[in-house]
Amino acid sequence: MNTDELAELGQQLRVDSVRASAAAGSGHPTSSMSAADLLAVLLANHLRYDFERPEHPANDRFVLSKGHASPLLYAAYKAAGAIEDGELVTFRKLGSRLEGHPTPRRLPWVETATGSLGQGLPVGVGIALAGKRLDRTGYRVWVLCGDSELAEGSVWEAAEHAGYENLDNLVVIVDVNRLGQRGPTRHGHDLDAYARRFQAFGWHTIEIDGHDIDKIDRAYGEALSTAGQPTAILARTLKGKGVAAVEDREGLHGKPLPEAEEAIAELGGQRDLRVRVSEPQVAAALRSLTTEAVRLPHYEVGEEAATRDAFGKALAALGTARGDVVALDGEVGDSTRTEEFAKEHPDRYFECYIAEQQLVASAVGMATRGWVPYAATFAAFLTRAHDFVRMASISGSGINLVGSHAGVAIGQDGPSQMGLEDLAMFRSVHGSTVLYPCDANQTARLVAAMAGLDGIRYLRTSRGKTPVIYGPDEEFPVGGSKTLRSGDADRLTIVAAGVTVPEALTAADRLAEEGIGVRVVDLYSVKPVDAATLRRAAEETGCLLTVEDHHPEGGLGDAVAEVFGDGRPAPRLVRLAVRTMPGSAAPDEQLHAAGIDSVGIAAAARLLVEEAVVR
Amino acid sequence: MNTDELAELGQQLRVDSVRASAAAGSGHPTSSMSAADLLAVLLANHLRYDFERPEHPANDRFVLSKGHASPLLYAAYKAAGAIEDGELVTFRKLGSRLEGHPTPRRLPWVETATGSLGQGLPVGVGIALAGKRLDRTGYRVWVLCGDSELAEGSVWEAAEHAGYENLDNLVVIVDVNRLGQRGPTRHGHDLDAYARRFQAFGWHTIEIDGHDIDKIDRAYGEALSTAGQPTAILARTLKGKGVAAVEDREGLHGKPLPEAEEAIAELGGQRDLRVRVSEPQVAAALRSLTTEAVRLPHYEVGEEAATRDAFGKALAALGTARGDVVALDGEVGDSTRTEEFAKEHPDRYFECYIAEQQLVASAVGMATRGWVPYAATFAAFLTRAHDFVRMASISGSGINLVGSHAGVAIGQDGPSQMGLEDLAMFRSVHGSTVLYPCDANQTARLVAAMAGLDGIRYLRTSRGKTPVIYGPDEEFPVGGSKTLRSGDADRLTIVAAGVTVPEALTAADRLAEEGIGVRVVDLYSVKPVDAATLRRAAEETGCLLTVEDHHPEGGLGDAVAEVFGDGRPAPRLVRLAVRTMPGSAAPDEQLHAAGIDSVGIAAAARLLVEEAVVR
Repeated sequence: MNTDELAELGQQLRVDSVRASAAAGSGHPTSSMSAADLLAVLLANHLRYDFERPEHPANDRFVLSKGHASPLLYAAYKAAGAIEDGELVTFRKLGSRLEGHPTPRRLPWVETATGSLGQGLPVGVGIALAGKRLDRTGYRVWVLCGDSELAEGSVWEAAEHAGYENLDNLVVIVDVNRLGQRGPTRHGHDLDAYARRFQAFGWHTIEIDGHDIDKIDRAYGEALSTAGQPTAILARTLKGKGVAAVEDREGLHGKPLPEAEEAIAELGGQRDLRVRVSEPQVAAALRSLTTEAVRLPHYEVGEEAATRDAFGKALAALGTARGDVVALDGEVGDSTRTEEFAKEHPDRYFECYIAEQQLVASAVGMATRGWVPYAATFAAFLTRAHDFVRMASISGSGINLVGSHAGVAIGQDGPSQMGLEDLAMFRSVHGSTVLYPCDANQTARLVAAMAGLDGIRYLRTSRGKTPVIYGPDEEFPVGGSKTLRSGDADRLTIVAAGVTVPEALTAADRLAEEGIGVRVVDLYSVKPVDAATLRRAAEETGCLLTVEDHHPEGGLGDAVAEVFGDGRPAPRLVRLAVRTMPGSAAPDEQLHAAGIDSVGIAAAARLLVEEAVVR
Repeated sequence: MNTDELAELGQQLRVDSVRASAAAGSGHPTSSMSAADLLAVLLANHLRYDFERPEHPANDRFVLSKGHASPLLYAAYKAAGAIEDGELVTFRKLGSRLEGHPTPRRLPWVETATGSLGQGLPVGVGIALAGKRLDRTGYRVWVLCGDSELAEGSVWEAAEHAGYENLDNLVVIVDVNRLGQRGPTRHGHDLDAYARRFQAFGWHTIEIDGHDIDKIDRAYGEALSTAGQPTAILARTLKGKGVAAVEDREGLHGKPLPEAEEAIAELGGQRDLRVRVSEPQVAAALRSLTTEAVRLPHYEVGEEAATRDAFGKALAALGTARGDVVALDGEVGDSTRTEEFAKEHPDRYFECYIAEQQLVASAVGMATRGWVPYAATFAAFLTRAHDFVRMASISGSGINLVGSHAGVAIGQDGPSQMGLEDLAMFRSVHGSTVLYPCDANQTARLVAAMAGLDGIRYLRTSRGKTPVIYGPDEEFPVGGSKTLRSGDADRLTIVAAGVTVPEALTAADRLAEEGIGVRVVDLYSVKPVDAATLRRAAEETGCLLTVEDHHPEGGLGDAVAEVFGDGRPAPRLVRLAVRTMPGSAAPDEQLHAAGIDSVGIAAAARLLVEEAVVR
């Protein structure tokens, strides 16, 4: 398209943004209007994308990081012929695909859900990494950011990653409209301020007037011809551009235009331009991936092994069997044991350094391209990426997250390194799976099973060695459990997972010697939970005692209680958990101090059984 | 101290770091040794600190961001005469104050718990902000960082904040030892790479050899004389400096030295130098703070008001009554309503822009200096700061966090903006308080009550208006609840909070018309929870139905279930919650779709009551 046509297209995108927001009675038209020219030129002259085949392996990828500018995105979809004009006015209404912030659950052209600012670039970096190192089909990744969101540290975490990895297939376009929600941004229209920051992280930068069609066009060309480093285009724009009543004015964020009809007239009225978006180059080399049976590591019953070790070995084996599995780590691969994968599959291993938000965002980005990522760090530090996990679940992203060094069982390092709220965090994620194995063979099986699940999958591993109690051929369905001790005269069921399973077994054996029959359930699948087995245990033994190396809220105890939230009569329930703030101490001292070792479990069990007798 | 003495002091800190780690059998001596000279010179020649009066308002503040180098910190405490040599060898042992990572719960000289990397600088920025804008006693804030942790985006979020706020009372010392846990960092010994980044964010930078005593000394002097901007000292160091067997070698992170006795000999043996640390300047002007009765806003029963509005007005009133109350916001003060406070108390209002990690870290930093911070953003975006909240609880920090726009009730903006896991996140924090008011008067009371609590306090507010159901003189003790409907023939208790309270009341009234007596409890205190009232309701009505605008895991339902986890017989429990991924729709459509509006509640209640009849 030539300059005049592009300018017209920009106006159309503005008009349609105003129309969609007016129909909805809410939305962010002014944030859309500032970036309209930037998107018009990209769509018409530079993007290579087949809207009929969004899964095309050589499609460029576009991420609208400023997700609130969704009217602009939907207006662009209309201009590209992907949606009809009539759908535009369903914006933000019940059942519409055109949500307030775009999500790939509803629209096939959306790469990742946005709306939590500062996440588009990190995910874009993940996609660009996949493009450079895995897919190699030549696609480019375009990310449109707002200026306000550059205050998020995650943006600079991503900038560091992209600069270091020389991601010259990545272009970030910053719509510097100088106005945030509440008022002016820190740096206003000072493009240099932003350029200095990106340059410091190794980026090529271009500063332009974001409403000058030719300059935008040339900037995109320059970005595409820049080799060896990513490019940031800093574009000076005006919020509400094109309508005098709102242009460059404060107090209008997230509001439809007061006089939509007049605004549309001022913008030159409704248009129906169609853009023929360039199709992607045919991929030179498409993926041909290995798929063979997984040869998981085997452990002998009775030996001792850490579940984190089994995770590392199983992941390496899975990587051998499946060419689509990739691993990422937050610079603690020697602790999480992803180093086992790195040794065998260095081409599919991604070092993310101490940057947990980028770690998860990279996984999300790779998953958009069909890869099956396993991202690992200490369970405690995954809390750093909570908002990214939340947004990944909104995307419907299929990622595997592995948190090691869970609980007080890590010992001397103290509470800062202990994951004591990870089960709560991952259970509360929509559609998630939460797994917590207690032995090495179980871990290996679950690592392989995770790959085939939907949504966010979390595996919790432990630092210290635990006894192998299952044979290598035992199966562990997700949503299942294992009943490890059981008898006709059981008066109580201990429900444990992970490090508390061996403690529960020791307690049960001690109690058996005292003549107290106790059932033990290994609840390795914390979500979904094996309701049938728990209900049967409740009916047969009358009382459940949950034992977890986690704070009392949101973890195993809550998962078990939820089973009995179906309106039917509930059993007696008691939970043992970490109720005080731990300090430093040896692992066994920690478990003892928290009352979740065999001694604490047996004591609680005796008390409960005696109480039952008294009644 | 002169150069030779300082060099000797540095060696002593190394020796004591080696000794402490050897006695513990774990710890990070090599990470301590790289920074020993940096800390020796600071302690002896520049820090102004009264170890006998850690609360002194003019004390400088030192934050060890690389908290794993705790042996170095404890060695420095010994050198300063704060602890005895004998205590050093209790390092990492059960009951010792000298934890693996330092915490202020145990040691009065520790400002904030560290050990999750990338948090020391953000908290230091918070303290420096308090120093510049609130305390004004002339103290300086020194933060010792590792180089690995500069990969965390939170560091650059903090750097941006400090540069923008011209915090020339802040000095960050980066111990660039080039080795992370697993191997080399991204930039090795390239000091320029780090300097460029800090400069881009408006910092003064100084590059030195971190083992050259005189250069360190001069760098600190230059930092202190730098006006108008914070200073970053980039110090080239060697991990394990001084012991050939470990110096600058990979694979030795977090391990005691293999031959401690030989290492100590190589370092010149044990010493017992004592440092006389300079005392702080007497404060020119100490705080004299207002304290008067709070004049909270009053609302009339029957009017409609959003709890976020009541929060804003109550916070402003609290700020008038108490001079120690400060407010912070993540650039959404017009939405959270902290703008009410900003208008009346601009000197105590802190705009943190879209940077939730820094928002919470600033609050933590200000709390260390005795201020009572209220930090607000959307509930959904507080997940961004989960790791900071976790570490704040380890610190025992007393901060108030307020999450607005909770739940599907926000309507059209869609799931990215909905807090649907915030209750789970905050309940799982050790020692936290979680409050969720349903009307304006209740909100106002709780806002004032929060200020007097210990630990992390969370208040959840709502976007839309809800009816005022309580009079302005009603009291709402934390840990309490309100029974809003009750009769002798109640067959069910609906437990609601926030936006589901009016829905529950409507449902109860409808059911009453049908002849079904139903109790309604407003559980505004989600943690601690009013166990007595819930148990009585269970005994008297036999069945509890919880209704929450939150995912089913970790929120109100789990809080109620926990009450019945004491081993006594439990009632029938059923929970209504947001079980599907919402899209965009009007608020009432959202509540209806999730099944948590009056229609959904009444339908569930009828079913449960009928079931009870059948039984």
